[in-house]
Amino acid sequence: MAKKNSKKKKSKKSSKKEPTVRIGVVDTMFARYDMGQAACDELAICPGYNKTFKVHSQTVPGFKDLAVAAMNLIERDGCSIVVALGMPGTAPIDKQCAHEAAMGIMQAQLLTATPIIEVFVHEDESTDPKVLASVFENRSRKHARNAYWMLFEPEQLRRRAGQGIRQGFDDAGPLQLK
Amino acid sequence: MAKKNSKKKKSKKSSKKEPTVRIGVVDTMFARYDMGQAACDELAICPGYNKTFKVHSQTVPGFKDLAVAAMNLIERDGCSIVVALGMPGTAPIDKQCAHEAAMGIMQAQLLTATPIIEVFVHEDESTDPKVLASVFENRSRKHARNAYWMLFEPEQLRRRAGQGIRQGFDDAGPLQLK
Amino acid sequence: MAKKNSKKKKSKKSSKKEPTVRIGVVDTMFARYDMGQAACDELAICPGYNKTFKVHSQTVPGFKDLAVAAMNLIERDGCSIVVALGMPGTAPIDKQCAHEAAMGIMQAQLLTATPIIEVFVHEDESTDPKVLASVFENRSRKHARNAYWMLFEPEQLRRRAGQGIRQGFDDAGPLQLK
Amino acid sequence: MAKKNSKKKKSKKSSKKEPTVRIGVVDTMFARYDMGQAACDELAICPGYNKTFKVHSQTVPGFKDLAVAAMNLIERDGCSIVVALGMPGTAPIDKQCAHEAAMGIMQAQLLTATPIIEVFVHEDESTDPKVLASVFENRSRKHARNAYWMLFEPEQLRRRAGQGIRQGFDDAGPLQLK
Amino acid sequence: MAKKNSKKKKSKKSSKKEPTVRIGVVDTMFARYDMGQAACDELAICPGYNKTFKVHSQTVPGFKDLAVAAMNLIERDGCSIVVALGMPGTAPIDKQCAHEAAMGIMQAQLLTATPIIEVFVHEDESTDPKVLASVFENRSRKHARNAYWMLFEPEQLRRRAGQGIRQGFDDAGPLQLK
Repeated sequence: MAKKNSKKKKSKKSSKKEPTVRIGVVDTMFARYDMGQAACDELAICPGYNKTFKVHSQTVPGFKDLAVAAMNLIERDGCSIVVALGMPGTAPIDKQCAHEAAMGIMQAQLLTATPIIEVFVHEDESTDPKVLASVFENRSRKHARNAYWMLFEPEQLRRRAGQGIRQGFDDAGPLQLK
Repeated sequence: MAKKNSKKKKSKKSSKKEPTVRIGVVDTMFARYDMGQAACDELAICPGYNKTFKVHSQTVPGFKDLAVAAMNLIERDGCSIVVALGMPGTAPIDKQCAHEAAMGIMQAQLLTATPIIEVFVHEDESTDPKVLASVFENRSRKHARNAYWMLFEPEQLRRRAGQGIRQGFDDAGPLQLK
Repeated sequence: MAKKNSKKKKSKKSSKKEPTVRIGVVDTMFARYDMGQAACDELAICPGYNKTFKVHSQTVPGFKDLAVAAMNLIERDGCSIVVALGMPGTAPIDKQCAHEAAMGIMQAQLLTATPIIEVFVHEDESTDPKVLASVFENRSRKHARNAYWMLFEPEQLRRRAGQGIRQGFDDAGPLQLK
Repeated sequence: MAKKNSKKKKSKKSSKKEPTVRIGVVDTMFARYDMGQAACDELAICPGYNKTFKVHSQTVPGFKDLAVAAMNLIERDGCSIVVALGMPGTAPIDKQCAHEAAMGIMQAQLLTATPIIEVFVHEDESTDPKVLASVFENRSRKHARNAYWMLFEPEQLRRRAGQGIRQGFDDAGPLQLK
Repeated sequence: MAKKNSKKKKSKKSSKKEPTVRIGVVDTMFARYDMGQAACDELAICPGYNKTFKVHSQTVPGFKDLAVAAMNLIERDGCSIVVALGMPGTAPIDKQCAHEAAMGIMQAQLLTATPIIEVFVHEDESTDPKVLASVFENRSRKHARNAYWMLFEPEQLRRRAGQGIRQGFDDAGPLQLK
């Protein structure tokens, strides 16, 4: 709900005090699941939503358009972190394009010195649409939560260092040394 | 018609008031279809053509020349967005060159903090020249429309988030979760 | 003739008026054909040679040295465009190196906001040395002409938009829609 | 022990004199071994630990998040060198992602003019979890030591030039010319 | 001899007049041949060694550390050109790492506008250790000489344009057009 109604909510809050920290969410028309909505839904249940932080969201045509959009969410809109969500298709050329999109997101981070969490779900990660949908929902939400943690609760990440944490599927867990 | 006659139209308008927003279009001699013309034709039927925005177009030798040309359309000519159109050929080396061209377009976006919509039609997307031509025309036009939306009607994109929107072929649609 | 004798010609002209526009040409010791000479020969028969423009040329060891040399021809020597010529060899590692060289040329363009036309002839484009030599000569000359057009006659490029123009081999021509 | 307790130690020391040289350590939740801890343990036994230098550590979700984190350890936290540790998984897409992560780490070095030592252990380097764990521990420690050497004892590196030094497995040694 | 004793030699000279041009040499512990020494030996027999130019050398852990080291030899130590020497190993992952290292060296050149000659000897260029050693020695020396030529005798390069010059193995020579 967060994404579509974000304008109304913001105007209600602005009469009180405006949260100054902003988290960006950018997704695509190309993807076959509303990944941006899932990310926004997760952020909406994080502590301090619309109090200590608010969400800026945008939709672009395809995943190659994510990098510059994320950069502008940072530089123009003042976001402190961005969640960039997209779905590479199944053709070989899609893999190459995904690589180009990912390289752009990497460069945008370095040019802004700001984290942009890349959330890609590959269309061929499952042939079962139900499973695939759960991957979309789960990975989008978990990385939105990671973004929140990076800004507000870094100790959550430190505590899980080297634990084989995954998004979309089950955690791999740490290596069993026996 | 738009591209070839753009100069005449501009001089007519300049007696009234010059549109300040500019959309860039850059295409190649290498492509086997006049992609730039298709993009210009679409922009010519967008609301506000030559009133709220005008089109700057340029042709370069091949797709590796698109990135710096797009950058100059932005930095030198003041375009707020650019549509960059090219056709990778069928040989393996063409795929590698397409990758290099695409990486250049990605970097040009980040160095200018301005969207450049990459419109590539691969020569091997269809063996039927009629089908291929329709892909050229349709994808060039749809991405030109996307560029217009990004500048003037971003809600058109947001409304289609996660809907499996395609250019050139039919939309894939959102996942059916059954 | 142009390349080797460029110094003498320049000194003769300098008593009259020095052309201010400069076109750079950079080639390699690694290539098995004097591509730089071919490019210089073509530029020498373009209108305004040594009157409205002059040529700066340089030779580097291999194609990975082209990018920074082209950058310096632009930034240090004031060239408005550069033709960068090289020959990738036949081994798999040569393909990867060609990719790295090409990425460097791409980045050099974006960091200088100046076109650098990459002219690569792959050693395996023909097994017949005569054919290969003609590809070297033809592609080097045609891209040198393209560089001239980009600076002085951009309408030559625009007129050929989408016409399947090639360098080295015959033009592919536009798609026949039947 | 170093990593988890670094805060307490720092506060104890700060009453005396604060070391001004900082070494950064950044690792991931994704890896299946606590590589950051291994690196911190090695640094804790280097001469001058918490006297002439101290360690800043951070954990990020995955290896694509290492580059910008390392950049911020340098630019924001004043680290003179960073050890960036991650584990590429076994799927083909993991290899591509590892490449993107590595390219980001490379670029972060060049944008900060500061060394970032990339320590990647590929999950498929061994099928035996015990062997793999020893690779994680050994490579993380050896590269942490390299980072220390680069800052404080560069002659240790010079002395080993061309000696086929490895991290994680046994040294390859110099070529036997007979 | 040059590399290991460079400090003593410099102190002797400094009582007379210090050469102001500096050539950087950076190599690795990973390589199985002392490539940096070979490069330094060649530079030591170039005209003007320690009179018109001197050599700065450094050793880093692996070839991915070459790029930022070369950048610092240029920016911090004032080198006008750098020879960067490394040995990619035989595993597939080594090829990818070599690509990343090479891309870094390319970018370092463009960010400093200064040539860095990449000298890579792939461990699998020969199965005969004697042949491989000669490739290491020959290529390292020839590229060190190229670096000298680029600074002091560019006409040596121009004279060899398009002559199929190689380093490590025999020259390929120019194409025989018959």
